[in-house]
Amino acid sequence: MTQTKGRASLEYSNPPRIIGAASIVGSKEGDGPLGHLFDHIEQDSKFGKNTWEEAESELQLQTAKKAMEKAGMNEEQIRYLFAGDLLAQGIATSYGLMELQIPLFGLYGACSTCGESLSLASMTVNAGYAEYAMAVTSSHFASAEKEFRFPLEYAGQRPLSTTWTVTGSGAFVLASKESAAARESSVCITGITTGKVVDYGVKDSMHMGAAMAPAAADAIYQHLMDYGRTPEDYDQIITGDLGSIGQTILKDLMLERGIDLDNVHDDCGILIFDSDTQDTHAGGSGCGCAAATLAAYILPKLERGEWKRVLLVPTGALLSKVSFNEGQSIPGIAHGVVLEHC
Amino acid sequence: MTQTKGRASLEYSNPPRIIGAASIVGSKEGDGPLGHLFDHIEQDSKFGKNTWEEAESELQLQTAKKAMEKAGMNEEQIRYLFAGDLLAQGIATSYGLMELQIPLFGLYGACSTCGESLSLASMTVNAGYAEYAMAVTSSHFASAEKEFRFPLEYAGQRPLSTTWTVTGSGAFVLASKESAAARESSVCITGITTGKVVDYGVKDSMHMGAAMAPAAADAIYQHLMDYGRTPEDYDQIITGDLGSIGQTILKDLMLERGIDLDNVHDDCGILIFDSDTQDTHAGGSGCGCAAATLAAYILPKLERGEWKRVLLVPTGALLSKVSFNEGQSIPGIAHGVVLEHC
Repeated sequence: MTQTKGRASLEYSNPPRIIGAASIVGSKEGDGPLGHLFDHIEQDSKFGKNTWEEAESELQLQTAKKAMEKAGMNEEQIRYLFAGDLLAQGIATSYGLMELQIPLFGLYGACSTCGESLSLASMTVNAGYAEYAMAVTSSHFASAEKEFRFPLEYAGQRPLSTTWTVTGSGAFVLASKESAAARESSVCITGITTGKVVDYGVKDSMHMGAAMAPAAADAIYQHLMDYGRTPEDYDQIITGDLGSIGQTILKDLMLERGIDLDNVHDDCGILIFDSDTQDTHAGGSGCGCAAATLAAYILPKLERGEWKRVLLVPTGALLSKVSFNEGQSIPGIAHGVVLEHC
Repeated sequence: MTQTKGRASLEYSNPPRIIGAASIVGSKEGDGPLGHLFDHIEQDSKFGKNTWEEAESELQLQTAKKAMEKAGMNEEQIRYLFAGDLLAQGIATSYGLMELQIPLFGLYGACSTCGESLSLASMTVNAGYAEYAMAVTSSHFASAEKEFRFPLEYAGQRPLSTTWTVTGSGAFVLASKESAAARESSVCITGITTGKVVDYGVKDSMHMGAAMAPAAADAIYQHLMDYGRTPEDYDQIITGDLGSIGQTILKDLMLERGIDLDNVHDDCGILIFDSDTQDTHAGGSGCGCAAATLAAYILPKLERGEWKRVLLVPTGALLSKVSFNEGQSIPGIAHGVVLEHC
């Protein structure tokens, strides 16, 4: 039963179903083009807590609970959690999901973590290691600015190449094909392509799209080669948070390899904000960007059959403030997840 | 083909073999009781680099290369990497292993990451997703002190409950039972128990053993229940880095549950340093502690058949300097890996 495809991909023999997906976001995301689609828009940016980090923990916990509620599950039924965030040592996840008392695999793939968590959760369910598993990721504008850039009070000018970290979380309950609950869903994960670290030498932490686009190009190209497919085999190829400038770079890099993404590519960072009116410059970013957009916008379209097959490619910039201050470049990574109406 | 055992464990139907294991450490670890067992002892604490973070990256890369060399493999043959470290946003891994260009799952489980990476790598190989996969973890005394505590130049007094972060890395090449290389090894991973976050409210970052012992007790107890085993079914139950005080707490917590670990328990943090002569107080800690001890000391004993079955339980303290400074408690997590002579 070989399920490996090419160098870096898997094609599942028992594609796991997504039986519950939830998205919770902040008010700015609620004001954006996808505002009417999220499960909940929280007006209190502290989510009732005292610090930005606790706020993100609470956001992640509420979203995980909402996904379980929508799946008709409780935490006793979820065998494994695959989760992560952008903060140092993954504290939004550790403190946020502790209450659930589910065996946890903590992950870090920067903003690609949504793809990493869905990859590992679907590998786990497809292999029969769990009937139900959950993938959760989050980001918070204020905790991320504090972690990576300047204090908010500094009010630094943001260059036009910057993206705006999404305050948001997405959680997904995956079920094995044979499980009773699987019948309720018509979206499955049919395969994955796992990315490697790609470094083109970008050193500007205010230009993440440029840092991540080469990794996205690498993952998409690898996916198409491994599967022997072309972009026409997908209704959409959607990256995580390249933003508008990153999108241009991605398309150029793919054209150099003879692949035209023009009519098939979109990006969660472009979808989630209206950059003309919301002052978000190149778009949205953060672990929560791809996760919330997937739950609120992409999965419902697949569920309804408007799209038959989507390649989701969450993208991550692998820097820390230490590596940035020490003058290191910003490598990227991206993980592809094949979502199908089934 | 049900391989799930109880609430949180798996028992593999095709136990992956460990066909190559490597350990590289710093000079202090080289002076310790296991000094003669490591593959390489590096006298230059900067590993030829300019910063502590780059040093840890280089340490991790060299160890990964050594494990592949010992397995007779090159990076083209390794399908997946599962790797992590203690630094914010996992930069030792991202920068260190980039050169290998292997599809990467970045992990964070604090010092339990060695257990997490072996868990996910063995799940992957057992499921047939890869013929060969590699698990790598590292820590570095100086980069960890900088990340979590005080500048080295501050020369703060260390309370007797502190542990000393190991400068070290361990890397492990896992092979599927059917692979040609598997025959070269007589150590396999037969199952895992995945831990959840456990918080007893400890707030002292100079007393990590106390923060992690409850998680270790939880994982060991869960493992014995899931498998229907007793401590006597193991030659050794070895935790990651509880140190001497944490060991006492673990034994007490297990006795409360009616389980006596007295003759079967050891701890990598106790094994790796001679605390009487090396001024390491409660023992060693860090992602590299369990990883290097496993590669240098535990696996060879299993390989030779001196031990038939060991439960390795790397333990992690899930704090960051932000959560610590904000007054949060320090939750723990621990992941069990069953290693057998086969």
